[in-house]
Amino acid sequence: MVRIPVFADVLEAAERIQNHVHRTPGFTSLTLNALTGAEVFLKAENLQKVGAFKARGACNAVFALTETEAAHGVATHSSGNHAQAVAYAAGLRGIPATVVMPEDAPSVKVAAVRGYGARIVWAGTQAQDRERRLEAALEETGAIFIHPSNNFHVIAGQGTAALELLEDVPGLDIVMTPVGGGGLLAGTALAAAGCSPQTRVMGAEPETVDDAARSFRDGVIYPPTNAPTVADGLRTFLGDVNFPIIRQHVSDIVTVSEAGIIAAMRLIWERMKLIIEPSSAVPVAALFEHPDIFQGQRVGIILSGGNASLDTRLW
Amino acid sequence: MVRIPVFADVLEAAERIQNHVHRTPGFTSLTLNALTGAEVFLKAENLQKVGAFKARGACNAVFALTETEAAHGVATHSSGNHAQAVAYAAGLRGIPATVVMPEDAPSVKVAAVRGYGARIVWAGTQAQDRERRLEAALEETGAIFIHPSNNFHVIAGQGTAALELLEDVPGLDIVMTPVGGGGLLAGTALAAAGCSPQTRVMGAEPETVDDAARSFRDGVIYPPTNAPTVADGLRTFLGDVNFPIIRQHVSDIVTVSEAGIIAAMRLIWERMKLIIEPSSAVPVAALFEHPDIFQGQRVGIILSGGNASLDTRLW
Repeated sequence: MVRIPVFADVLEAAERIQNHVHRTPGFTSLTLNALTGAEVFLKAENLQKVGAFKARGACNAVFALTETEAAHGVATHSSGNHAQAVAYAAGLRGIPATVVMPEDAPSVKVAAVRGYGARIVWAGTQAQDRERRLEAALEETGAIFIHPSNNFHVIAGQGTAALELLEDVPGLDIVMTPVGGGGLLAGTALAAAGCSPQTRVMGAEPETVDDAARSFRDGVIYPPTNAPTVADGLRTFLGDVNFPIIRQHVSDIVTVSEAGIIAAMRLIWERMKLIIEPSSAVPVAALFEHPDIFQGQRVGIILSGGNASLDTRLW
Repeated sequence: MVRIPVFADVLEAAERIQNHVHRTPGFTSLTLNALTGAEVFLKAENLQKVGAFKARGACNAVFALTETEAAHGVATHSSGNHAQAVAYAAGLRGIPATVVMPEDAPSVKVAAVRGYGARIVWAGTQAQDRERRLEAALEETGAIFIHPSNNFHVIAGQGTAALELLEDVPGLDIVMTPVGGGGLLAGTALAAAGCSPQTRVMGAEPETVDDAARSFRDGVIYPPTNAPTVADGLRTFLGDVNFPIIRQHVSDIVTVSEAGIIAAMRLIWERMKLIIEPSSAVPVAALFEHPDIFQGQRVGIILSGGNASLDTRLW
């Protein structure tokens, strides 16, 4: 029986993690409002610890462990922000962390995970290689697995970003997040349902990898496509913990073009002076590509992270 | 007789401009602290209106005008942030602004100035061309000239950034700004002398264009060198309004290398997710290149602006 978090778990997460993560600032831009016809509020999780909202879920999961559970440490497989987040949270609690990473992971991400004191286990380049190595590592160490998105406490933790946004900006018509594995969207949906039920919750996804949009519509979890996207962190499965929440509390998932993502990313860098990664630009792009939905609305967007490459330029 | 602003003028400026500029957030970074051995507080004027602290001085100067003075509008010569700031401030007050710009000004800056509703007058590519065209424009229109850095109200307005920083972070040992024309440094010096006299005020400058450092040492205003620097907004003269303040209240002006500026800029982009322009990176570079001064100190730095090119990469 899968245990599904509720609003009270988001509130509990907020209390549990408050000394370990930033209450990130919100930003507005008259230019963005003029260009989109919406009144937009951006929650800057790119300024969060480890540069992404993932610090929230990882801290909640790590600090929710009992002493007995925590004794053997935690483990995960990720080449992205969740790996850094688990390493960061485990370091704070002073327990070992094992991160299974693909051999082609960007060296800056490897260095960051190492910098937080985690042990890295290399595992080929395929997802199934990582899963096999993770299984082995869990058996060896007795560590607790912290899934990037389909984990009770991770989902509740991610919901704390929207909780803060909805406290800071009451009366939002819509709150929107990117959707990849579904942890942020599900947590956001719990937060909104609990503290601002009149606010609609939406997800935004690259149209080349529209598995979440199709899953949402059809009520079954589809695998992500193999198509490329600049927002490659979003190419992951929804799961059985977050999908029921998304189906119940999310009003729609929209898709956006690759060109729209890049243009939105550039706009935020150029006009708001905030470095955001491509995934964060996905909901911003939705404002431009779906004006019928957003014009005239007060829209909160969670800028999910800022770990963009500074050596390659997308425009 | 040159009229020199005092601390009370900074306080008056703060009140005059409070509805027209952002109270910008401050940021800290454990990484930056660990790397520099200092405790660093960054005041994010890159998130200010027009993307730079220049909005403060321009708003103070424009709103300090009497109705009679304002009737014929304002004018300035600048290809940089001050041009946008004057255009922005004049637009808010609803008076005409004339900006004399060089024919090789970056098109994005031209578009920004136009976007705020200012009239652009083109004037060759040399400083003396611009000065001649400005003289003519002032005669034609009867507009009031707002100098970028050597203006009573501009200096007082720029001081409001440090005023906020020193309110938000009491007990700073040092507050440091980049120095080009000297308006920000002089305003900062007034603010610190008035509200936190135990705080030392320092300027930082590219070593290839070290006229302010030499002027400070020798007590005479030297012209800027013609040497190139990535922080090209700093290649300007000190003036007779700001220099006496700098001589009286600033404890030192240090210089930094070009490589240091670029590395510091990248560090802030990469670790703090804030887009800053090269000039803003100059005081950050000073933390690394002058450890003897800054280690163990609580140092506030004004990140002066975020109008960096996104099409060329310095690293």
